[in-house]
Amino acid sequence: MTATPTYLERLAARSASVGTVLCLGIDPDIAGLPDKFSRDLAGIEQFARLLIDVAAPHAAAVKPNLAFFEAFGSAGIAALERVRAAIPAGIPVIADAKRGDIGSTAARHAVALFDTLGADAVTLNPYLGEEALGPLLERRDRFAYVLCRTSNPGAAELQGLELSSSDTAPAEPLYARVARRAALWGPGGTVGLVVGATAPDELARIRTIAPGLAFLVPGVGAQGGEAERVLRAGQAMAAPAGGRPGGGLLVNVSRGISGAGAGPGGPGPLDPAERVGAAAADWARRLPVLP
Amino acid sequence: MTATPTYLERLAARSASVGTVLCLGIDPDIAGLPDKFSRDLAGIEQFARLLIDVAAPHAAAVKPNLAFFEAFGSAGIAALERVRAAIPAGIPVIADAKRGDIGSTAARHAVALFDTLGADAVTLNPYLGEEALGPLLERRDRFAYVLCRTSNPGAAELQGLELSSSDTAPAEPLYARVARRAALWGPGGTVGLVVGATAPDELARIRTIAPGLAFLVPGVGAQGGEAERVLRAGQAMAAPAGGRPGGGLLVNVSRGISGAGAGPGGPGPLDPAERVGAAAADWARRLPVLP
Repeated sequence: MTATPTYLERLAARSASVGTVLCLGIDPDIAGLPDKFSRDLAGIEQFARLLIDVAAPHAAAVKPNLAFFEAFGSAGIAALERVRAAIPAGIPVIADAKRGDIGSTAARHAVALFDTLGADAVTLNPYLGEEALGPLLERRDRFAYVLCRTSNPGAAELQGLELSSSDTAPAEPLYARVARRAALWGPGGTVGLVVGATAPDELARIRTIAPGLAFLVPGVGAQGGEAERVLRAGQAMAAPAGGRPGGGLLVNVSRGISGAGAGPGGPGPLDPAERVGAAAADWARRLPVLP
Repeated sequence: MTATPTYLERLAARSASVGTVLCLGIDPDIAGLPDKFSRDLAGIEQFARLLIDVAAPHAAAVKPNLAFFEAFGSAGIAALERVRAAIPAGIPVIADAKRGDIGSTAARHAVALFDTLGADAVTLNPYLGEEALGPLLERRDRFAYVLCRTSNPGAAELQGLELSSSDTAPAEPLYARVARRAALWGPGGTVGLVVGATAPDELARIRTIAPGLAFLVPGVGAQGGEAERVLRAGQAMAAPAGGRPGGGLLVNVSRGISGAGAGPGGPGPLDPAERVGAAAADWARRLPVLP
């Protein structure tokens, strides 16, 4: 009998196989659909399937953003379930849900995201603490990326607040303390961090505080973050995520790939699928697994 | 032409009408269903409808917890949509979703919760700051309860961290700063706070910091919070929520009402619907609108 590989093992195998730390974000909005697609849920689903067909083969992981399906109610979730079923085995799936609630509710989140939707990993909000999130942190074959320093312009309003020192931690901003705490959460190897590429100094500081945690990094591309700096500072340097291909790093690109489908015709391929596939291949090359 | 009443106006009208600040929590779990109900989604939906039929008439508001429906995937959300449609007009509906994401995603949350599901109010996580949550705070006829001090045993791990003083705020715990910030969020009258009954000292402190914000208070009953202390300290003392019947206060009871359906037969009514209705009427009396 062989134990089920952990998420970090599955992610490392996929990163090594495709040679990239690119995470394909699936956030399909009606306003961003190519011309030929219907302006409704059917068009959203059709475009999400196109992303999986032509962009996911280039990616180390796929991250559907649940809100873009939840906006259509139960019909939207049914479409998400079909989209998820279309993702080939071997590509880790991250349910971008940003959940966080007391333990009895978190237990239902675990069922919804890990069992019903079949996600390998989820994104979580740390505000309620480890005790509440326990049901989402304790499965050794699943994974949770905890929000640490997010990519939005107003992220620092709370995340940048300065904390006093304590018996176990220095004076530091809230996001740094979240990294310090999350490194102790779960049984080991099931927790990583969401750190935005739009805050490269904070990203470097968080890497120093949590050298072994996997990072999921949004904000490259459309939000303005620089890929090169993220590649250098984003890889884990210690266990559990370090010492594997990719070092547990995932750099998410959503609009930078999906937006190519809606781009101008001009020179080059006119078919949205060709343009999206080319954009994904380009991002995969710009986000290599470092030796 | 008359403007649509605000959420705080609608809540005050309902509180005055039923004479209580009871919020009926709908968190139906298979393990908590009465004996006669099937152990599946159909049983969950049937029991949620029973709660609406016999308990909601006693309540000032109804709060479905989305996770308990999301656990069943698209079929669960379809059941939630039917349950929501069964809630009579005039009873404010709070979608307990604990959402919080960057602005482009928050805009889809607003569609999902306010438009598609038809909620009057939502629960939100503050970690990303006002800028991100904007799309959920700006509608003058809707409302958002922002997590401030939650009711779970481990809530203080982050919420209780001590912040240094700043130009505009004293040294204080994170939950207190969240209250101070949230009082400034949105256009005015669209933001309240979630404050657990299990932390009565913190609740009193938050009321001092934010005298005008509506409180949604979980944790009474099954989680051990005391109703009397919450009633005294929970009502808003200033605008926008103060000066109305109920003072913007809602005290949530979930298992304390739904659990009556699964109680032992013994003396008294044997029908789950009768027991649930009696429990709701009892909680409504214990949570009066103070003069």
